[in-house]
Amino acid sequence: MPFEFDILASDSSSNARVGRFQTPHGTLETPLFAPVGTQATVKAMRPSDLHDLGASLILSNTYHLYLRPGHKLIHEMGGLHQFMGWNGPILTDSGGFQVFSLSKTRKIDADGVTFQSHLDGSHHRFTPEKSVIIQEKLGADIIMMFDECPPHDKYEYVEQSLVRTHAWAVRCRNVKKRDDQALFGIVQGGIFPDLREKSARFLKDMDLPGYAIGGLAVGETKAEMAAMIDVVNPILPDEKPRYLMGVGAPEDLINAVLRGVDIFDCVLPTRLARHGSAMIKGGRLNLRNAQYERDPSPIDSTCNCATCMQFSRAYLRHLVKANEILAHMLLSTHNLHFLISLMADIRKAIRKDKLQDLAGEILQHYPDAPQL
Amino acid sequence: MPFEFDILASDSSSNARVGRFQTPHGTLETPLFAPVGTQATVKAMRPSDLHDLGASLILSNTYHLYLRPGHKLIHEMGGLHQFMGWNGPILTDSGGFQVFSLSKTRKIDADGVTFQSHLDGSHHRFTPEKSVIIQEKLGADIIMMFDECPPHDKYEYVEQSLVRTHAWAVRCRNVKKRDDQALFGIVQGGIFPDLREKSARFLKDMDLPGYAIGGLAVGETKAEMAAMIDVVNPILPDEKPRYLMGVGAPEDLINAVLRGVDIFDCVLPTRLARHGSAMIKGGRLNLRNAQYERDPSPIDSTCNCATCMQFSRAYLRHLVKANEILAHMLLSTHNLHFLISLMADIRKAIRKDKLQDLAGEILQHYPDAPQL
Repeated sequence: MPFEFDILASDSSSNARVGRFQTPHGTLETPLFAPVGTQATVKAMRPSDLHDLGASLILSNTYHLYLRPGHKLIHEMGGLHQFMGWNGPILTDSGGFQVFSLSKTRKIDADGVTFQSHLDGSHHRFTPEKSVIIQEKLGADIIMMFDECPPHDKYEYVEQSLVRTHAWAVRCRNVKKRDDQALFGIVQGGIFPDLREKSARFLKDMDLPGYAIGGLAVGETKAEMAAMIDVVNPILPDEKPRYLMGVGAPEDLINAVLRGVDIFDCVLPTRLARHGSAMIKGGRLNLRNAQYERDPSPIDSTCNCATCMQFSRAYLRHLVKANEILAHMLLSTHNLHFLISLMADIRKAIRKDKLQDLAGEILQHYPDAPQL
Repeated sequence: MPFEFDILASDSSSNARVGRFQTPHGTLETPLFAPVGTQATVKAMRPSDLHDLGASLILSNTYHLYLRPGHKLIHEMGGLHQFMGWNGPILTDSGGFQVFSLSKTRKIDADGVTFQSHLDGSHHRFTPEKSVIIQEKLGADIIMMFDECPPHDKYEYVEQSLVRTHAWAVRCRNVKKRDDQALFGIVQGGIFPDLREKSARFLKDMDLPGYAIGGLAVGETKAEMAAMIDVVNPILPDEKPRYLMGVGAPEDLINAVLRGVDIFDCVLPTRLARHGSAMIKGGRLNLRNAQYERDPSPIDSTCNCATCMQFSRAYLRHLVKANEILAHMLLSTHNLHFLISLMADIRKAIRKDKLQDLAGEILQHYPDAPQL
């Protein structure tokens, strides 16, 4: 049955679990990391490349697709799955975050947000209803409520914003028509435990098929992020998937999994790739560095991704320095493989009840992250 | 035996032939089209993607690799095949053409050419000996003589230049050490039949493992190009492969094959791809055009490349407009497949003695090209 979430295994000493989430385009095994395909393409990756990596869920951005090429066009072309050639599950965000982070100017009122396109400065308006209608035209398996993503550390503003976001959540649910799409709620509340609690309770009462935690990884400390998850997750129902939006640093992933989060997405792996940076255990490898100029070894000799199986750091450095597209392709492959196989390792560890060992191994490299 | 060239089939009504050329990294079937990997990468293509397309020979540019990352570095990293992860045959050009077309300034004398890097303006000097030494370090299967590529239509200059180019050819042969590389001569002579004849005779007498025709596709008419090939090819020995440098337009390929050319290379398919243009029978399809905005059909419904099997013109247009890397990847795949499968069709037609039919079909679309 679509959107059924089954917990297959639980960690005995944390809230981590392995789950299975059914969608109309296939079953997701959680915890999982979803590559981001902002403009209906995960940058520098063919859909078949993503499939080969073991990617299961792809995120795409409503704000970008609305502006270009337009949700109606994508609908006419058979929907987002067919348009981008990805037949697996897709999640679209609501456009809320981008309206606040990318638009040149924006004006928010109780009913919605008027904003300017980052492409051409043209004026547009999103309301909760509009966001859902756009997402229904795009046709993703998981769609998100339209929310405000307020400055995380301004209590009074966040408190008022939460009233609006909750009213918008109800409006999103009320306007939603398609039953082959799961509408996830988004818990907001900045870095304030009482507001996060309030938001989680409000959305829990709406009895939704899944819950996201929004407004984190936006400048707060790692301890604050963990504390917010610790407030929210015990309130959110265990039998529904939890999605921490915009998080992709390994130490954040493991800390959130330990706290019961199931789904993640982040532009980090593909963005780092475009900057010539490779994700490795405990850090990053900047391939622009002169030390790799004559280094015949792969990025990581223990990695079995297509890039590490064939190409040297010296070659990758050359491609980065020469600004070759292949650099983006090969580094995106490696970085996505890094996170996708990390999540596979996490699932395996939970099933074997060995997550503490894996978490300890990962977190030792990140002294500024909360430790076990 | 390396560099043995066997003619497997001949067209009864033209000079076209199907050949087999042995190299240390595999056997080439001719006529063939070689994708260009200027900086040790065919832009936006993984080596495995090229393999999947049926690419057999890859060309790389000595001038570019000498400047970045340097031939010594590539040699230390195991040579060009290992460096770029392409275990099939590779051809490097001599750097001659790039010194004349890319360098900011150049000064030519009897001994060689002093030029400025297009990257940083630094000064460098190529001589015939230097070009061969660099190419030996790179380690391609086929290497090219260092030649001057003079303005094609200045008789006196071309005549003098030819003396220099022939002297350089001898110096290249004399300095060459590796016996696992075939050194091809390059016939020059601009658009002047007597000079082309002289050049072909001179190089023929050197008894080389293969012969290139250089200095064409640089602004002369298609009739002039064909006329030059008609002068040169009857002089060059039939039992050696002939390579027309820098040619990749379908009508030029078929006309040259009819005249006995075996090998081609050109940046056209990958360059067109980066400009949003797809090669189709009889022309090109500019995906920026508004008419493809909502076009659900593939570039070419009769094409079986990975791009046409999965993606619509509407999606490709979106990727091009959004300046997505995937546009370059998908269009490069299609365009390279277009030329590589055209050459496969040509080989098949020669074997069946049906080349005239195929040539007629192709040439009808290009009224400005020489017809049968």
